[in-house]
Amino acid sequence: MSVQNRRTVGVMGGMGPDATVDFMSKVIAMTDSGRDQDHVHMIVDQDPTVPNRQAAISSGKDDVSPRLAAMALRLENAGADFLVMVCNTAHVFLGGVREATNIPFISIIDESVAEIERLCADAKTVGIMATDGCIDTNIYQDAVVASGRAPLVPAEAELRQLMDLIHAIKAGDQGNEVAKGMEAVARALVDRGADVIIAGCTEIPIVFQGNGFAVPVIASTNVLAKRTRSLAMGQDSLPIKS
Amino acid sequence: MSVQNRRTVGVMGGMGPDATVDFMSKVIAMTDSGRDQDHVHMIVDQDPTVPNRQAAISSGKDDVSPRLAAMALRLENAGADFLVMVCNTAHVFLGGVREATNIPFISIIDESVAEIERLCADAKTVGIMATDGCIDTNIYQDAVVASGRAPLVPAEAELRQLMDLIHAIKAGDQGNEVAKGMEAVARALVDRGADVIIAGCTEIPIVFQGNGFAVPVIASTNVLAKRTRSLAMGQDSLPIKS
Repeated sequence: MSVQNRRTVGVMGGMGPDATVDFMSKVIAMTDSGRDQDHVHMIVDQDPTVPNRQAAISSGKDDVSPRLAAMALRLENAGADFLVMVCNTAHVFLGGVREATNIPFISIIDESVAEIERLCADAKTVGIMATDGCIDTNIYQDAVVASGRAPLVPAEAELRQLMDLIHAIKAGDQGNEVAKGMEAVARALVDRGADVIIAGCTEIPIVFQGNGFAVPVIASTNVLAKRTRSLAMGQDSLPIKS
Repeated sequence: MSVQNRRTVGVMGGMGPDATVDFMSKVIAMTDSGRDQDHVHMIVDQDPTVPNRQAAISSGKDDVSPRLAAMALRLENAGADFLVMVCNTAHVFLGGVREATNIPFISIIDESVAEIERLCADAKTVGIMATDGCIDTNIYQDAVVASGRAPLVPAEAELRQLMDLIHAIKAGDQGNEVAKGMEAVARALVDRGADVIIAGCTEIPIVFQGNGFAVPVIASTNVLAKRTRSLAMGQDSLPIKS
């Protein structure tokens, strides 16, 4: 493939740090080569000091947007041709990022919902596993409705369980029990009618990617990694900046 | 710990990509916290398109230095307070990096050799596992001699085996056979008198960190990760820029 068409991706990361490393590992694993030079050029801002996204949503005091806008601009100035952000919930705060920069931003939400069309186009009810803050703002539900499908979100107890599991993963507990817990939350959504699940928080695919699960699972991190690689290698054309 | 004292590390990476991710994972694992905000802020240039370091050394045509200098400057401009580079061999090309930037550079070579003093101060003969290019330029041998010890490098056949193993790791083969091969190279150095081993290529600690090995093994990636964390968290004072 031509080096001329290659693009540098700016990765807005650190939310959390493990999820960013998981994303990077997945992009690397998609390249079947022994040569360093065949891999994707990423400039990664692994900034775990970005304020808590759930807290900003629930309090209504947005201290997140200016931090993300500044991060995006730094990545553009450092040479990024396009941006991705390895945190679903942080996509709530995208407005400032789009205003601050002149390069396209590839949304993990849009890519994950678009994946339904590729993976299981006849799916009607989409189970959404995401943080409470993400669910509260309807960003996934709106994208699912726009795709002509019905969103199904976790019930209150399921959402509490999901948040506990996400916090456990952030605290480094990424073992079998946590994976089983994630599968239980997914199963509850299937029991209530979901015929596809979106793992719409980048902590989830660290432990649960839905291999062998009852319905298709769309691992948001993996979908973003695949799209990032295609764009970085010049295999897809870059969307116009919105 | 005070947020005021925290520092941002600029990581010169992508050489190879897996080694950079391994380094980042090790820095993350050293933070015992469930809060994203307690982790280290890293700006990472994961640039696998930096030309082959061994080839630049053996041909004498240095197309690496200008690339590394530009990378270092980008990281400084993006907000890094100090720099590290996750590739031992690339330290051969440091001159341009130091000239191009105004922030301190923490050398993986110097840190790994200093670790001997902390880990096994009475060691006399230091076995050096490093790439052929790195060995040819004597950067590790010189640092070991400066510490008052004798360097011991792999014999020709051992070095060929080591390079084959490093290429296998870069190609994604990081299994048990490759780990055993690394241990065999280390053992050959011990058989010839090494009383400590430096795993002085960032691919090596991906598979071999010397747990339970006959003599102490200094895993260069791990040493750099530990030092990076201390500096980023403000626990160590930052060296003057040299």
